[in-house]
Amino acid sequence: MASFAIVGHLARTDGDFSLNDLPGAGRMDVLCRCVNASLFLSHDLRRDVECYLVLLGGPKAAKTLLFKGNEIRSLSPDERSAGALIKKGLGIPCGSEFREAAPGVFVRNGGLERLMTEHPFAVMDEKGTDIRTVPVMPSAFLLSDHQNFSDAEETLVKEAPRYSVGPVCLHADHTITVISNEIDRRNNGWK
Amino acid sequence: MASFAIVGHLARTDGDFSLNDLPGAGRMDVLCRCVNASLFLSHDLRRDVECYLVLLGGPKAAKTLLFKGNEIRSLSPDERSAGALIKKGLGIPCGSEFREAAPGVFVRNGGLERLMTEHPFAVMDEKGTDIRTVPVMPSAFLLSDHQNFSDAEETLVKEAPRYSVGPVCLHADHTITVISNEIDRRNNGWK
Repeated sequence: MASFAIVGHLARTDGDFSLNDLPGAGRMDVLCRCVNASLFLSHDLRRDVECYLVLLGGPKAAKTLLFKGNEIRSLSPDERSAGALIKKGLGIPCGSEFREAAPGVFVRNGGLERLMTEHPFAVMDEKGTDIRTVPVMPSAFLLSDHQNFSDAEETLVKEAPRYSVGPVCLHADHTITVISNEIDRRNNGWK
Repeated sequence: MASFAIVGHLARTDGDFSLNDLPGAGRMDVLCRCVNASLFLSHDLRRDVECYLVLLGGPKAAKTLLFKGNEIRSLSPDERSAGALIKKGLGIPCGSEFREAAPGVFVRNGGLERLMTEHPFAVMDEKGTDIRTVPVMPSAFLLSDHQNFSDAEETLVKEAPRYSVGPVCLHADHTITVISNEIDRRNNGWK
């Protein structure tokens, strides 16, 4: 099981946005692509992956969405499809525990602080250790959207190991794809 | 300079489609994500990359679109943004030579047969040689969309080397991301 979590600093926390303008919903398009990169294989889904989206853009308090690869239905690879599920998740009332909004899609109140206590996240950072050289791959990876982690977030993650996928700075979804490839290779005896 | 070409077997060859339903335009969403994967870095573009889309879905005869990383403007990472440029390219009359439809976006009639004579394409194939073991990286990569290459296409590419990015079959855009990572690493002395 691998877990990916992406912090959406400006991403709306209610469902009041248009699927025709995902960038305008606090760069929700970034998060949609991260769901795709986390969960899709060609003509299949990564059943052993879960993807957390930490939404911090208001107008409501922080929320966390969870997409479970082994339970999800009705997800297609296009951005609108992930966007529609995000909108559905944000459209229902939720409390402090995950509530299912659609098959495999869950939502709760709260953000990164609690999530950091639940998984042993490695932080993806272009200045981190080369992921190819790590003897044992982490099981959970934390990424930021188009913005850097805030000072408060950096404090929360300061004890976490930091890894890099390569010498140039990539979009979060591209980073997830490269990590997944490294996991695939190791799981199948490719060097 | 690296070139990526993606064959869109069902992708429309006219601009008569809605940006609200890119999957319905012959899985144009697949090609939009391939443009993104080819050209985007975090907060920058890959200026030394070009991306060809070979559109075969009719109603008009085959067309080829070209996105040049060093000339393109007005491209954002979301699918609709690439879709809008594709629509623009398909909306203008074109002939046998590339005509510029928008900065960095070009269109011509014709498909894979001519393109194969212009670049030394390697074919991406999950049964191919592991790309990490290739002593010299190819400069051009050919991929298919959600469908396999047709028999006629396989005949056209039968002399080309075949490479794989890993042990599981990935979407075309994810494959491009992994290839680009391998190129980045080699260009910067990472192993």
